[in-house]
Amino acid sequence: MRVNVAGAGAIGLLIGARLAEAGLKVQMITRTAEQAAAIRNEGIRLSANGDEQVFVVDATSQPRAAGEGDLAVLAMKSYDLERFVKSAEEVLDGTAVLFLQNGMAHLPLASSFPEDQVAFGTVEHGAQRTGLGSVKHTGTGPIRISTLTGNFRHYLPLLAADSPAFPLVLAEQGPRHLLLAKAMKNCLINPVTALANVRNGKLAEDPALRSLLGRLHSELVEAFPEMAHTVTLDGVFDLCSKTADNTSSMLADFLEGRKTESEAIMGSLLSLAKERGASLPTLEALSDLVLSIERGRLWNG
Amino acid sequence: MRVNVAGAGAIGLLIGARLAEAGLKVQMITRTAEQAAAIRNEGIRLSANGDEQVFVVDATSQPRAAGEGDLAVLAMKSYDLERFVKSAEEVLDGTAVLFLQNGMAHLPLASSFPEDQVAFGTVEHGAQRTGLGSVKHTGTGPIRISTLTGNFRHYLPLLAADSPAFPLVLAEQGPRHLLLAKAMKNCLINPVTALANVRNGKLAEDPALRSLLGRLHSELVEAFPEMAHTVTLDGVFDLCSKTADNTSSMLADFLEGRKTESEAIMGSLLSLAKERGASLPTLEALSDLVLSIERGRLWNG
Repeated sequence: MRVNVAGAGAIGLLIGARLAEAGLKVQMITRTAEQAAAIRNEGIRLSANGDEQVFVVDATSQPRAAGEGDLAVLAMKSYDLERFVKSAEEVLDGTAVLFLQNGMAHLPLASSFPEDQVAFGTVEHGAQRTGLGSVKHTGTGPIRISTLTGNFRHYLPLLAADSPAFPLVLAEQGPRHLLLAKAMKNCLINPVTALANVRNGKLAEDPALRSLLGRLHSELVEAFPEMAHTVTLDGVFDLCSKTADNTSSMLADFLEGRKTESEAIMGSLLSLAKERGASLPTLEALSDLVLSIERGRLWNG
Repeated sequence: MRVNVAGAGAIGLLIGARLAEAGLKVQMITRTAEQAAAIRNEGIRLSANGDEQVFVVDATSQPRAAGEGDLAVLAMKSYDLERFVKSAEEVLDGTAVLFLQNGMAHLPLASSFPEDQVAFGTVEHGAQRTGLGSVKHTGTGPIRISTLTGNFRHYLPLLAADSPAFPLVLAEQGPRHLLLAKAMKNCLINPVTALANVRNGKLAEDPALRSLLGRLHSELVEAFPEMAHTVTLDGVFDLCSKTADNTSSMLADFLEGRKTESEAIMGSLLSLAKERGASLPTLEALSDLVLSIERGRLWNG
């Protein structure tokens, strides 16, 4: 089984390492030649629970040179997806593809692939890239995989990597429900931690932030009533407490001066709500603040 | 004419200097003995438009020792007002009092004074304290004064200081209208500049912040329809452009790690709206974010 993992950020490296650990033949597709060379020469260095392991994988920055795999895992950020897909037809053509982006903005893009050759996943791991080819696994959460057809045959080989440290779950719900649930959680946690400059735990502790999350949750459930049982406010506070010391990806992006996934995460829910005639004033306020701060930093930085 | 100016922050010092300049006998009432001594010894140093002038005024940190004036101008922050009023009965008893606090939280407190001896003012100057007794006048805007009775006789002597650099306006509207208009402008400008970490001008330029202000303005006007002609969105954008380089007081408080006036400014509008059964979701989101950041900084700092 040969898997191309495209995108060598924290999540891509984590997945590459865990799949290699399970005996799959992994090739990383990176954005820069420098990173590909580093990974080819030194492997992926994974640290987890104080242990460090190195996994040998192949790597290239040339999608056209990557060659076909049995499966392509797309682990880049949502905003990098379209460019990659356009440049990598040779890798993706005729191959099963697993999209791991946050938000829902990639659903239309994925619809250009044959329905039985795409799957969508949500990732709840905490991971931090610590070098070109090194990653720290800071929190374990399932990768849930969902297909449009309910048929998982292309993706079953991934289950070889399923373990308590790297749980893989074949989801019963369709991709839309799965991605919407994840996007709602992201909307509740990411912009608030980024704007208030706090780790996840504070959202469950600080009275003002608890109250903000409560109103934001009510708004979201009013706009998406079908999610009321899937994403509960108590569940979100629980998640914040369990990941209390985590820096959310959006706060990390702020702190590192990187582009955030605000468009994919908040933008897609705002559009969906608009289509339904629902208003999300709290989320809109958060989104505008994040966008303006991001723009200011990218300009000034 | 003897005026006690209580509160020697940027606005208190500016007013003390401008009144002294007009020939009024000014005594500053400061919070610390150190500041009173500095002002007694060195006067108030006012810099404006590149010029620097020093004005000799009296100063004390002991309200009980201040003695009666013909007029007391209360220029401390809203959150310091109650403590001062309780400690300064001798200064305030039987004297005309001008309240200059932001927000509307001080209206109930002021109602314990005889109706014809209180006035309320809104301040639109930009000023920055640069030392114990020195202040930089960074932007000129009117001080509007309003009384409950429509009678201004106690306050007319202040008009001696009226000038293009320090305009004093006797307002036709009652205090409630005047303070509500100012509080709405503060709610539109202060929390957004503080959270997005931008000077006023950006609110009129950045597309995301313009859009945020637009929605916040709609919410406020829906809750307070009587203000629709007094506080227009265009007027607010104009104000932002005219004060483009100004750091709002709330952003300055954030940057200096000081307590903000969030409670007086946003808290009082949120309460008022609640009384009317109106909801202000955008303002609530901003308020919760400011409160949590403020709490985090005051705790950690």
